Amino acid sequence: MKTAIMTVGNELVTGRIRDKNAAVIAKGIHAQGWQVIAVVSVGDNKQDMAWALNGLLSRADAVIVTGGLGPTADDVTTAAVAEILGLPLYRDEAVLRRIMDLFAARGLKWTENNAKQAYFPAGARIIPNPVGTADGFALRHGEGLIVVIPGVPSEAARMFAEGVLPLLRETFPGRAKAVASRTFKLFGLPEAAVDEALSGLDPAGRGVEIGFYPEFPENHLVVTARADDAAEASRRLEETCREVETRLRRYIFAYDEDTLEGVVSSLLMERGLTLAVAESCTGGLITDRLTDVPGSSAFLIQGIVAYSNRAKMALLGVPEEVLLAHGAVSDQTAVLMARGVRAAAGTDLGLSVTGIAGPTGGSEEKPVGTVYMALADNERSLCRRYRFRWNRRRNKIISSQAALILLKDYLMGE
Amino acid sequence: MKTAIMTVGNELVTGRIRDKNAAVIAKGIHAQGWQVIAVVSVGDNKQDMAWALNGLLSRADAVIVTGGLGPTADDVTTAAVAEILGLPLYRDEAVLRRIMDLFAARGLKWTENNAKQAYFPAGARIIPNPVGTADGFALRHGEGLIVVIPGVPSEAARMFAEGVLPLLRETFPGRAKAVASRTFKLFGLPEAAVDEALSGLDPAGRGVEIGFYPEFPENHLVVTARADDAAEASRRLEETCREVETRLRRYIFAYDEDTLEGVVSSLLMERGLTLAVAESCTGGLITDRLTDVPGSSAFLIQGIVAYSNRAKMALLGVPEEVLLAHGAVSDQTAVLMARGVRAAAGTDLGLSVTGIAGPTGGSEEKPVGTVYMALADNERSLCRRYRFRWNRRRNKIISSQAALILLKDYLMGE
Repeated sequence: MKTAIMTVGNELVTGRIRDKNAAVIAKGIHAQGWQVIAVVSVGDNKQDMAWALNGLLSRADAVIVTGGLGPTADDVTTAAVAEILGLPLYRDEAVLRRIMDLFAARGLKWTENNAKQAYFPAGARIIPNPVGTADGFALRHGEGLIVVIPGVPSEAARMFAEGVLPLLRETFPGRAKAVASRTFKLFGLPEAAVDEALSGLDPAGRGVEIGFYPEFPENHLVVTARADDAAEASRRLEETCREVETRLRRYIFAYDEDTLEGVVSSLLMERGLTLAVAESCTGGLITDRLTDVPGSSAFLIQGIVAYSNRAKMALLGVPEEVLLAHGAVSDQTAVLMARGVRAAAGTDLGLSVTGIAGPTGGSEEKPVGTVYMALADNERSLCRRYRFRWNRRRNKIISSQAALILLKDYLMGE
Repeated sequence: MKTAIMTVGNELVTGRIRDKNAAVIAKGIHAQGWQVIAVVSVGDNKQDMAWALNGLLSRADAVIVTGGLGPTADDVTTAAVAEILGLPLYRDEAVLRRIMDLFAARGLKWTENNAKQAYFPAGARIIPNPVGTADGFALRHGEGLIVVIPGVPSEAARMFAEGVLPLLRETFPGRAKAVASRTFKLFGLPEAAVDEALSGLDPAGRGVEIGFYPEFPENHLVVTARADDAAEASRRLEETCREVETRLRRYIFAYDEDTLEGVVSSLLMERGLTLAVAESCTGGLITDRLTDVPGSSAFLIQGIVAYSNRAKMALLGVPEEVLLAHGAVSDQTAVLMARGVRAAAGTDLGLSVTGIAGPTGGSEEKPVGTVYMALADNERSLCRRYRFRWNRRRNKIISSQAALILLKDYLMGE
């Protein structure tokens, strides 16, 4: 089934706020296996609404409209929809009573303009608002359906789930497809290389869809399978996912809602290992990410942001000679930082990062973006060198990512 | 002038992500005194793009398109625009060289499909991408203009400001009014209270517009003045800004592009003071923010993420008795952490945060969201207690904000 979304409000076309409703509604529709062919945002004026609504009605089975149902003069959605469909407005006495009762219950002073929210186009089916005063409504239009709900995100989300989705299923029986989907989160392979790795996979032929979503410094790959029944959808999904898995295994660090910090945290907790982190150029970003995971205090004993050489010596025991001979940004320093923080904290593992985030501080031999990271356990230490080429913030982010990947690889014995 | 925005990407019509670009572009256009008649989002398919683009071209002088310029098979915007306008594609050798050089510079493996980003519709004017590989382009269409830029928000925002806006002004001379604007960045006052503080200001009467943009945990207030000449615009701006300044001074921490960490860093550098930070619940977020500022190594000597009591004792010298008597989340502990990290690092100032980010760990007396922060210099220490009511991540963010505000207030002698 083809659907479309129209969000109404001057604040949307002046950039005053970012539309919250479209994404929530589109997600809910997509989950049904239905399609959203377009999302259109227009201001609170009848001409633009007429243009958008007529255009969408000509291509979609159902159009969901949000916004412009308030009591004030600038809210004209109901009147506009009535005009566009050539329907008169009527006042719904039951709705009017409900609104007046709500005002009384909330101790609000009743003003006549609020009665406006009790008017609907003739033939409208009311969609009750369980939270506020603005009820929504639905109208058949030929074979199609128009649904109008308020723009207040909390009201729109609830009314869409409780009122609109059931109505759509009822109005278009048998149109809902079964949907199964999985997200692969990748690091270390540019988008085009991912594409290359998947060449010849023929998603269409397998009845699946594959979407790429670069989310620096990660690439997310979403496989979505639609079918008439759930069993077939998940069969198609699994078949394609096995293939994706084989082709990209090395680069996959998480699935679906999992995050890299979450995966690393789970591995540490499963294995009952404790961690200490010594950061230079990442400035605390690694421990910030790890402490976003509830319960991380179970394994994260301490973090040291050793931004100065003084701190590297005093807190991590990196000998001055090493700093002088090899520099603060070197594999020797990285390894000694990892060992030092591990020893100081008495943890099973020590993780360290030292590098040049930029924009200045680079040299011929060690240009901006040069980063060393090391991991130390009771016996050995691993060290990796990278050369990143982004701005300061992005160099920090990708360095924290690479360091957590080093830790993950170690924990998974890779 | 009438403009329209078309954002392209399956992720937008499946609700996987919320569109970031439309609001930024609409805001920029609105600031010029131009109108956005509609924002349309469609998936990565030519039919929907053709329908949307033709519809918008029939009603707008200029259409700005974002997204679908990537190298992968699902990116079809350039090809779609060429088809819709009946133009052949050509390969721009200069652009191709630039992309290949960028790959080389970033040490990425070149794959043939990347050449796709060097193809443009005949007659296109290239809009350079200062950050990534996907250049944008512009095409005249009758009296109108079509502009296409990438969907990656960081690239879209920059290319819109540096490439698209100047091009629009040049293409539609005389359509732009003189515009002057200032952003006030506020912390500590809810939206409704800001509204109240500004009541009776009558922006319209002063020929200005005041926009409100909540950006957790900050509130941004944008005053925009439009007039026929620059002098009048800036006169109106200054007049209103003086008024805003008087009414909200206490809550303003930065202007325009400045950030809180940037303001604090400048104050520390001006005064030649050094800083050490001890973080518990913020987990390194404070030093992460400070180290986003180039040159922060000049004042930030070290940070300690003392997530465990062990670390609070060993690294910050907080006596076990205090932890037992008052708890790790207490003003006593916060103050001792600030003094401890200052002493250990030998800095002028010590800043500390300790609290309960949640979701668990709260108690009757100290519920989730209870946070203490302290600042110590050579004589005294200041301590503030907060009770935040957000989720774990947001509690961390707003705690780091409040701690940096404490530091700023101290440095400004407030």
